Amino acid sequence: MKLGLRETRERFGAALEARVDGAFGQDDEILLAVMGRAHMATGGKRIRGLLPSWIAENAAGAGERALDLGAGLELIHNATLVHDDLQDGDSHRRGQETLWRRFGAAQAINAGDGLYFLGMELLAGAADGAALVAPVSRAMLRVIEGQVMEFQLQRPAGDAARIEPGAAAWERMARGKTGALFGACFRAGAVAAGLGAAEIDGAAEHGEALGLVFQVQDDYLDLVGDKGRGQRGSDLAEGKLSFPVVWAYEHADRATADALRAILSAPRADTDTAMVERGLDLLARCGALDATAAWLRDARTQALEHPAARWVPGLAEEILAPVIHAL
Amino acid sequence: MKLGLRETRERFGAALEARVDGAFGQDDEILLAVMGRAHMATGGKRIRGLLPSWIAENAAGAGERALDLGAGLELIHNATLVHDDLQDGDSHRRGQETLWRRFGAAQAINAGDGLYFLGMELLAGAADGAALVAPVSRAMLRVIEGQVMEFQLQRPAGDAARIEPGAAAWERMARGKTGALFGACFRAGAVAAGLGAAEIDGAAEHGEALGLVFQVQDDYLDLVGDKGRGQRGSDLAEGKLSFPVVWAYEHADRATADALRAILSAPRADTDTAMVERGLDLLARCGALDATAAWLRDARTQALEHPAARWVPGLAEEILAPVIHAL
Repeated sequence: MKLGLRETRERFGAALEARVDGAFGQDDEILLAVMGRAHMATGGKRIRGLLPSWIAENAAGAGERALDLGAGLELIHNATLVHDDLQDGDSHRRGQETLWRRFGAAQAINAGDGLYFLGMELLAGAADGAALVAPVSRAMLRVIEGQVMEFQLQRPAGDAARIEPGAAAWERMARGKTGALFGACFRAGAVAAGLGAAEIDGAAEHGEALGLVFQVQDDYLDLVGDKGRGQRGSDLAEGKLSFPVVWAYEHADRATADALRAILSAPRADTDTAMVERGLDLLARCGALDATAAWLRDARTQALEHPAARWVPGLAEEILAPVIHAL
Repeated sequence: MKLGLRETRERFGAALEARVDGAFGQDDEILLAVMGRAHMATGGKRIRGLLPSWIAENAAGAGERALDLGAGLELIHNATLVHDDLQDGDSHRRGQETLWRRFGAAQAINAGDGLYFLGMELLAGAADGAALVAPVSRAMLRVIEGQVMEFQLQRPAGDAARIEPGAAAWERMARGKTGALFGACFRAGAVAAGLGAAEIDGAAEHGEALGLVFQVQDDYLDLVGDKGRGQRGSDLAEGKLSFPVVWAYEHADRATADALRAILSAPRADTDTAMVERGLDLLARCGALDATAAWLRDARTQALEHPAARWVPGLAEEILAPVIHAL
């Protein structure tokens, strides 16, 4: 009987949290630890942290063995969030002030840097760390490259650093930014389970694909739900380049694509509700909404059929839960 | 016959540079690589990169074996410089515009993050990487903690995050910020040379001590030379908490300490030449200048007597060269 995500959290959640917290040491006076703990206390579902134990437990009863790997990967993931919040100028995360707002930009850079190396130290010291430091480092390079590309995709026409928004560039960006670390979490679980090389690579590939599904789901949710921000289309208002928008740029007629471009490139303050509604309407009428739903249905089927899916029962459904009613 | 630094550079410098450059890959279009290469092209003496090969060659003829370790450590060190430049608002490094000025703050954060993981990937993939990833991560945590503390030591009285400037806090900051990675470079060379555990730890300890000597030398140089910035006392003008200033805070009479505090806490723009001259005069008259020279002479003797000094002939002299005339 394989564990689902909820049972995994019940079984390993507290131990994972103890490893994360323990990594900061005993001295409460150290500001680097104060900042790291303050960020971790903003919460999050700890999916990346739980994945290694989830997979290792279901594949080999070795969930315990993967706890330090999960804690390390969770810390590294949270480092990217600390830097993200600063880069995007976000003042709050899950209702609490972000680190750069509380401690200033310079210290928030330090806090993220510290979380990276705290995570690497945990990884390196874990039983299976030697096999994972290099692939996790490579995965993080893809995460950071994705982050670099996301900014490039949003640069105005004529800017030297601009990347023309297209499906290939978008997928490379999203696979890096969201998929690569998911893949590394799967790899960590498969290594801790003692699986063979082909199964380890297969697990990482499945994790990366699910990371991409998560990203496209999030983009779709912005069009069909409200992402908890009170209104649909907030990505449009913020000028975020999403899967549906990139699809429209490549498949819609020129007038529709140009109209969408105008909405996305307008400053946030100038984007009123009527503009967002027009954007949503354009995406629906040009077929981008349906194409995104079809992509997600297809990705769901592929995910469920993947051999590594048996180690994480219910994960694809969990990822798609917020939008499943609209697929 | 053991190699000096110059011979080490002649023997291994080009190969080191090739490893550093090769780490960025072949694709010239990737902005993350463009930024990383642009930063590395600002130069630097690559001391940290050369140290592992220098030590490994002199201790065991294994300089070649340590090249990837050196390249990885050099990349990680340069990541901290990229973030430093942004944190300090420095517009130029060695005559060239800093990354945040050329590519913006968000991309400079990404560039530093990328250099960290490129360095870790090289380390992890090196022959001796497995033994070094955890201690290098721990050293980097101390570097970052030092960076955090440096800002805390400069916060105004009454600020919640302020650390009271004293000798113990200053040394912890400087040992972390400047010593810890030097120590890791020595450790890497000793590991590549196949030395025993006690010798490896001894080498790391010696490296850390030399890092501290480098920092105190740099502080002293600001008082007796011009650090190439056209005038003495630029640290005083910038409000930097240096070894001589901390010494004065602890040993000078109250009036002198208060007068120094007033100079350091004045905004850069309000600090004229006369104020800087007064600060230099105060440091000389209260004995801080002599105390710093005495500390350096003492540290030099200790460094030369350290067992690990035989692997890096001339390094202590090289570090002290800019101030040796004044000791």
